[in-house]
Amino acid sequence: MKKRILSGENREWPKKGRSPFIHRLYESPQSGPEIEAESFAIIDGEAPPHEHTPAQWEVVRRMIHTVGDLDIMEAIQFSPDAIAAGIQALRAGRPIFTDSNMIRSGISLKRLRTACPEYGPTSLVCPIGEEEIARQAEASGLPRALFAVREAKSILQGGLAVFGNAPVGLLELNRLIMVENIQPALVIAMPVGFVHVIESKEELMSLDIPYIALAGRRGGSPLAVSVIHALCTLAEGQKENDRKGLRP
Amino acid sequence: MKKRILSGENREWPKKGRSPFIHRLYESPQSGPEIEAESFAIIDGEAPPHEHTPAQWEVVRRMIHTVGDLDIMEAIQFSPDAIAAGIQALRAGRPIFTDSNMIRSGISLKRLRTACPEYGPTSLVCPIGEEEIARQAEASGLPRALFAVREAKSILQGGLAVFGNAPVGLLELNRLIMVENIQPALVIAMPVGFVHVIESKEELMSLDIPYIALAGRRGGSPLAVSVIHALCTLAEGQKENDRKGLRP
Repeated sequence: MKKRILSGENREWPKKGRSPFIHRLYESPQSGPEIEAESFAIIDGEAPPHEHTPAQWEVVRRMIHTVGDLDIMEAIQFSPDAIAAGIQALRAGRPIFTDSNMIRSGISLKRLRTACPEYGPTSLVCPIGEEEIARQAEASGLPRALFAVREAKSILQGGLAVFGNAPVGLLELNRLIMVENIQPALVIAMPVGFVHVIESKEELMSLDIPYIALAGRRGGSPLAVSVIHALCTLAEGQKENDRKGLRP
Repeated sequence: MKKRILSGENREWPKKGRSPFIHRLYESPQSGPEIEAESFAIIDGEAPPHEHTPAQWEVVRRMIHTVGDLDIMEAIQFSPDAIAAGIQALRAGRPIFTDSNMIRSGISLKRLRTACPEYGPTSLVCPIGEEEIARQAEASGLPRALFAVREAKSILQGGLAVFGNAPVGLLELNRLIMVENIQPALVIAMPVGFVHVIESKEELMSLDIPYIALAGRRGGSPLAVSVIHALCTLAEGQKENDRKGLRP
């Protein structure tokens, strides 16, 4: 199973007889944005009926696009105020806590600046790799993710909180919300895995805080990034409408 | 659908009455590595029967762990020589091409150095963000991913090629293998999406080159990173065995 055995004959033919698939693209070029538009159209066509608002669908579709899998659709949960809260926070240039360097690296500053031109590299805060965090984790026998959240408390108050890695960071944020009255503008809750993950999301969803969450075990940094990017698209659209006077 | 309506009563009780879940972890601390070990044990317990070798299972299990989903198991494909080729390349400190900055950011240098102490920041090559790449993409109407692969041709000859984003980079690598006799040590093929993705992986798997691929639409940067990290674990184990004289 899982092994492909090549006969001696098969070993040679691809190099000799066949035209590489990419020649088709050389002949009929498609740009990255064109491929993305085609992908979104495929998702629109394949998605089952749903009750998402158009703005929520912008987020859901980009998440599906990011993992290549429509099955995540039913696990995506919004608090009623999540989209508005996210757009407002991005347009105000609120700082963004990320639980992994992959998320920090994946979030496009160019996209953030379409929502708010004041966004810069220091707007993204990811303490997980700091030596002091490692020291505290070592001393306590608890994961680094927990101390990264504590370190970023002042950012999390009014900022965006983005989780795509370990659940313990989200659990610690839940505690800050419940006990220390920390109120992020929006929590994007996509930690992934088999231990404490479902609980971390269920606890968050029981709190009175704007959230976009992927219920269950699945999650990951690209999903979390895709939510931020979809919210940037929505924020840009709202700015455009403001300029046209379509909104007061 | 997807909306959770909180009653006025529910809005208050979490902050007042309930103990945060994380208090359980404060009382019985679990470190990151301990949580990972528990996760791996859960995956071992839930996985259906399979015919992977123990070394392949090290890779498969880490991939499952990375996306929180056992369903990817059946889509993971190894060429017969993939594990040995990957371990050998890492132990030799071969350079690593990555198709996204998220992968470059996600691969742990500390882990790479357990396989080969000579690994350093310049061992990871990711041209996708370079201005010249953007210029070529703009001029041609083709995606940047294609030109990033061309730019890295000398790295790809004998290096590890890691794809977790767009399929067009992998398609261009397939062409280099078929037409220009470029021979990576190992191709990790996890591009994701709805256009050209399945074709890019099927074409690769028809070639005479070591690969680890996730067939179908699914994929992503964390999956690609997880394969590298699993191979580092295997390489470290092999080094350890070499030291003990268990292998000639």
